[in-house]
Amino acid sequence: MDSVIGVPRPRTDSPEKVSGATRYAGDDVLPGLLHGWLVLSTEAHATIVSIEKEAALAVPGVVAVLTADDLPVVAEGSGRSNEPLARSEVVFSGQPIALVVAESEAAAEDGAEVVMVEYESLEPVLDLEGAMRPGAPLGRHPGEEDASGMESVHAAVGAGEQELPEEELSGNVLKRSFREEGDLEAAFETSDAVVSGRFETSWIYQSYLEPQTATAWIEPGGVLVVSASTQGAFMSRNELADLFGLPLDKVRVRAAPLGGAFGGKLMLVEPLAAGAALVLGRPVRLLLTRSEDFQASNPAPAAIFELRVGARRSGELTGLDARIVCDRGSTIEWGLEDISSTLVGGPYRWRAFAIRSYGVQTNRVTFGAYRGPGAPPAAFALESLLDELAAQLELDPIEFRLQNAVVEGDVGVSGRAFPVIGARECLERVREHPIWLERNSLPEDEGVGVAVGYWPGGNEPASAACRLDRDGRLTVVTAVADMTGTETTFAAIAAEVLGTTPENVRVVAADTASAPFAGVSGGSKITYTVGRAVERAAEQARERILYVASEELEIAPSDLEIVDGVVRAVGSPDRSLSLEEIAQKALAWGGRYEPIAGQGGVAQPSSAPAAAAHLAHVRVDHETGEVEILRYAVAQDVGRALNPALVEGQMRGGATQAIGWALYEELRYDEHGQLVTGSFLDYAIPTAERVPQIDTLIVEVPAPSGPFGAKGVGEAPVVAGPAAIANAVAAATGIRPRQLPMTAPRVWALLQEASTRTETPPA
Amino acid sequence: MDSVIGVPRPRTDSPEKVSGATRYAGDDVLPGLLHGWLVLSTEAHATIVSIEKEAALAVPGVVAVLTADDLPVVAEGSGRSNEPLARSEVVFSGQPIALVVAESEAAAEDGAEVVMVEYESLEPVLDLEGAMRPGAPLGRHPGEEDASGMESVHAAVGAGEQELPEEELSGNVLKRSFREEGDLEAAFETSDAVVSGRFETSWIYQSYLEPQTATAWIEPGGVLVVSASTQGAFMSRNELADLFGLPLDKVRVRAAPLGGAFGGKLMLVEPLAAGAALVLGRPVRLLLTRSEDFQASNPAPAAIFELRVGARRSGELTGLDARIVCDRGSTIEWGLEDISSTLVGGPYRWRAFAIRSYGVQTNRVTFGAYRGPGAPPAAFALESLLDELAAQLELDPIEFRLQNAVVEGDVGVSGRAFPVIGARECLERVREHPIWLERNSLPEDEGVGVAVGYWPGGNEPASAACRLDRDGRLTVVTAVADMTGTETTFAAIAAEVLGTTPENVRVVAADTASAPFAGVSGGSKITYTVGRAVERAAEQARERILYVASEELEIAPSDLEIVDGVVRAVGSPDRSLSLEEIAQKALAWGGRYEPIAGQGGVAQPSSAPAAAAHLAHVRVDHETGEVEILRYAVAQDVGRALNPALVEGQMRGGATQAIGWALYEELRYDEHGQLVTGSFLDYAIPTAERVPQIDTLIVEVPAPSGPFGAKGVGEAPVVAGPAAIANAVAAATGIRPRQLPMTAPRVWALLQEASTRTETPPA
Repeated sequence: MDSVIGVPRPRTDSPEKVSGATRYAGDDVLPGLLHGWLVLSTEAHATIVSIEKEAALAVPGVVAVLTADDLPVVAEGSGRSNEPLARSEVVFSGQPIALVVAESEAAAEDGAEVVMVEYESLEPVLDLEGAMRPGAPLGRHPGEEDASGMESVHAAVGAGEQELPEEELSGNVLKRSFREEGDLEAAFETSDAVVSGRFETSWIYQSYLEPQTATAWIEPGGVLVVSASTQGAFMSRNELADLFGLPLDKVRVRAAPLGGAFGGKLMLVEPLAAGAALVLGRPVRLLLTRSEDFQASNPAPAAIFELRVGARRSGELTGLDARIVCDRGSTIEWGLEDISSTLVGGPYRWRAFAIRSYGVQTNRVTFGAYRGPGAPPAAFALESLLDELAAQLELDPIEFRLQNAVVEGDVGVSGRAFPVIGARECLERVREHPIWLERNSLPEDEGVGVAVGYWPGGNEPASAACRLDRDGRLTVVTAVADMTGTETTFAAIAAEVLGTTPENVRVVAADTASAPFAGVSGGSKITYTVGRAVERAAEQARERILYVASEELEIAPSDLEIVDGVVRAVGSPDRSLSLEEIAQKALAWGGRYEPIAGQGGVAQPSSAPAAAAHLAHVRVDHETGEVEILRYAVAQDVGRALNPALVEGQMRGGATQAIGWALYEELRYDEHGQLVTGSFLDYAIPTAERVPQIDTLIVEVPAPSGPFGAKGVGEAPVVAGPAAIANAVAAATGIRPRQLPMTAPRVWALLQEASTRTETPPA
Repeated sequence: MDSVIGVPRPRTDSPEKVSGATRYAGDDVLPGLLHGWLVLSTEAHATIVSIEKEAALAVPGVVAVLTADDLPVVAEGSGRSNEPLARSEVVFSGQPIALVVAESEAAAEDGAEVVMVEYESLEPVLDLEGAMRPGAPLGRHPGEEDASGMESVHAAVGAGEQELPEEELSGNVLKRSFREEGDLEAAFETSDAVVSGRFETSWIYQSYLEPQTATAWIEPGGVLVVSASTQGAFMSRNELADLFGLPLDKVRVRAAPLGGAFGGKLMLVEPLAAGAALVLGRPVRLLLTRSEDFQASNPAPAAIFELRVGARRSGELTGLDARIVCDRGSTIEWGLEDISSTLVGGPYRWRAFAIRSYGVQTNRVTFGAYRGPGAPPAAFALESLLDELAAQLELDPIEFRLQNAVVEGDVGVSGRAFPVIGARECLERVREHPIWLERNSLPEDEGVGVAVGYWPGGNEPASAACRLDRDGRLTVVTAVADMTGTETTFAAIAAEVLGTTPENVRVVAADTASAPFAGVSGGSKITYTVGRAVERAAEQARERILYVASEELEIAPSDLEIVDGVVRAVGSPDRSLSLEEIAQKALAWGGRYEPIAGQGGVAQPSSAPAAAAHLAHVRVDHETGEVEILRYAVAQDVGRALNPALVEGQMRGGATQAIGWALYEELRYDEHGQLVTGSFLDYAIPTAERVPQIDTLIVEVPAPSGPFGAKGVGEAPVVAGPAAIANAVAAATGIRPRQLPMTAPRVWALLQEASTRTETPPA
């Protein structure tokens, strides 16, 4: 029987999704369902003086107007995770202040329109660098429990990092960290070239098709049930239990099918629907409109990277000096500064480095994870400067990168040794691609850029279960929210182990009441971790199948094989039993065999970093500044392409979102902190006509602990895309964009500036 | 820490049940729910000439009138399992002919009242012995696929049994079997006493509180979902898939909480609700009224036992000659004749036996399982005659039974050796009870009877899973329909294994989409089989817990113990980790331990038969024939009383239902086959005022393969009850009742007959 691994197959959930049959969280049908509508703050920073509910309550159909005081929240502290509705201070325009609940969506909307919120305006903090300065107004009045936020001003040591130099900073700096290794100044002194630059990236919206949605209700026994567009059923369960002070078994979360998520769907709407259901005792749905989702969700944040890097004429990288400022918006719980500070080193060896990072609150929206959070800006900064170094030192950009690329065991700026990583292999692959080979014979205004990046990959213990049904088909049970086709992949993994076809494997996502534990679908870890648990569960089932067959056929298990769903003697295929026959023997009343089942768990010793190299061939219109992508290729190390169709889908999707980062996407706020690009009319995403065919070059450097060598593939393909496009723009024009997105006006301005300086573009 | 095994605890589902919060299958709330109402046959035997739907369809709210042709049944053959609605021939009064589906129950009922069915009457077969005679009219016109039914007339060999003597029988005899061992006539010839009798028992209704109910709907992907008052989710799933020709994964069954079942709740209403949902594409509920449940469900069937038994003056039992006729009503798929023919030998050794059994169709309702199916009638016949033998041979009834009672290894009339069985221990226990000790000093008209019986116990492979949650509590997942408090017991089993309290174990019944396999809740096997699987799953979790603790505390697992939810070093209890701490270590992002989980399967080498001895002390009113039970005791071998409160509940419940069998219960049909006792006004059950305090004597003879030695306890306590009461009546009056129930008129008639014959009652 041919292997099913490495064979392209469509996603099993596609027919239902494309035919409209999929029941998303917003489609749950429940009698007595109430509908929620949010009252969002119209101020970016203000104290709430009063909230007038009466007019809303007078709207026919309105059942309740809930404010922070009404929700049965027991968690203390501020921050969005503890404060689903603003208590006394609003910290971004769009922050939920009240939830109107009504018998119909229309009534709830009507009610929300007449809730009158009286504010006392406070100065909004919007300028990222300005927010850091001592004496700057604070974006949030710190509560007692937020004292740690204030400490940062004087703290000399960050969490787990080295001693920080003393700095005078405002209380908006919620976290600083510092990583240092080697003698940086000495490294720069021995360099033959040192380049530097300041890079800025923008707030970016995840642009999932399905806005955030949750439906919550109470079941007998007082169990809060939540069906939500969440990436992690167990995480939502745990956080809801903490928020409302409920035992874990009084909260049951169903991760409904996702209409896209990309990192952004976790615990924004669940607490609101759940809180209302707890208060009202009736089912409540909250479905954000697109406009609300733009204003009130958690996009990727802006960042500033100031980098200085050096290299020798030999091509050896020397020193990296980095200052990273990550906007946290109004999120106080965490920031991307830590991850950006490890990713800014890229997949390279450095003689010396010093990396400072800052997480800074502003009165923008809360931020969240978005596909490779913190990685595209870091790669944009570093890979732009590497191209400049290569140009100054007259090195081939790919050979230069290859020379410095890490291999297994090299210690990164994180201080940890890299596991197996395929950065070199990806670079070698794009080196042979026509886009690269033809780069020097292009028309004027065209150019090719290359960049490489990686995503470290998540690693979280996971488990899975399986059982062989009476019909000889395997049922695999996990808790995974299928964001990227993971269930399709699980079926292939289990089928391969069992010696049957993926059509004979059914994958079930159970809810938190009964599912084996699995973590959030994020960090490119589901296939790597849960996929391995599925493999192990199937291995256990296989062992038990072989045991039954061995007993029945009187042949040692080691002399048996499973081919096309039939267990047979090696060399005597006529001595056989089908999986169906075996299942029925193991399910027989009074039978001598246990039901065939398997349970698999994993705790892998390391994550599996995935690298990807991008090639972009662009044409820049000097009249308009518009960048057109003519050709594009991405070479990605996927460990093992379990299902090349899905892997290529991720590569193309990642590259497409990279094009959005590079050229179009930007959440813009006015001077009052109001979002001015709050719809798809104002917020540009790469549409089909603007995205070229993307060549996908699958590189397979097996991950030692992954299922069949596979590693996570979702995030790596976005990382280096903006850098490659920026390098292509530089190659085409000689200008060096240092701000994303590289919109036509910005590029045009750079071209104008360059022509004013009458510089000669480098070759 | 004290063991939690053997400690009485209330059922965990009691608070919800007694407070009305439990959501039964009839309480599922679904938008767009349609309601079904059955049109039942008014004839016991007839051909359907026509079914007029128009009037019903004209009733406002009626959506459809479904008949057999409308259901998407692919299964061929007749019989209720293939024919949820009668096709062309009705074979019992009350048989479902049509299902009216409407927007409300009232509309459906109105519609059902005006569905006009035209019948061509056929002669109903109602007399059980008469039905067997050659040339008797047939209760069902045999179809081609039912040829096996006709074969019985001439078949010389039954399935798996010995050669059958040739007999001339009608086609109503659907199955014969014959078991023979030793020289029976020689055995009787060497006997010092031989007694014989013909015993008759009645149709008995299970009298569950909740009538049969199912709700069915279609989910995205075309999955048929059924929430039903079923005793077996997987069995219902499998049979629905077969009936409608659906893949197993397109059928999902939820075993809803049961309001009693006692063996009777399997696949009567599921096919009707499911068929309607498949046809109409909308949710459909069918909830039988009590009257419909009486007429159209599957009660325990009537039987005739003709027995001849002999013994020697030494007390040794010699020969058993039995002819058993089991009414099947209109059920063609199976009968109780097989099980009755093995149980008629009782828990005794026989020198020789010859047992013939017949399964005979009549035009009564279909029959079903009811707590110890086939056992109470067999024990009634045998134990009555044993008392007569003891009297004739002047032997003590208990010593006589003890002398012949089987022990492990004795071969029964089934031809198989008995596993460990506690029949002797139960008899020894009642021998010491005051009821027995005081039996010879009772007022006139009072008497004490003893009897013993057993239930062989079911044995079916089963599995269970568990996981340790972040809060240190264990979640156990099974597919079990909790009929008798098994979830409460599973919690105790898992807690005992883990070293924690049952309150820290949560048991979840998952549906067939994701649950580990478990069989029907029936045959007294859930605690024995699934309970053992739970024990094994918990053992696996325990091992993993000890591994984590061992690594963290740097102490060998063998030097660790778990006490009160804390893993600690034996002898150094301060070196410890709580289960909560361990769970969190095993669920930590990037952690080194797999999530703590366990999966357990079982296929026990034998079943675990359970014996019970009953003592009844009665007073018989000679004026009215009324039997009053003054005192009652039941000694039951339960292997190990995991939860004595629940075990005693089963013992009392079983004894109470035995009192119903003995004195009150009888489904009576008139000469047209119409049920005349179709309500609780006409059908008497033992009410609280008629049931004495029942002494429960727990006997513990451990079952080698059961969890902590436990065996099933549900069915054994009903088996010998009617016999003990009959023996008590005989002791009180000298008359020998040979028909159940021993109603006052019947006993009065026997007393009259005896006084007419002016016989002297025996001592």
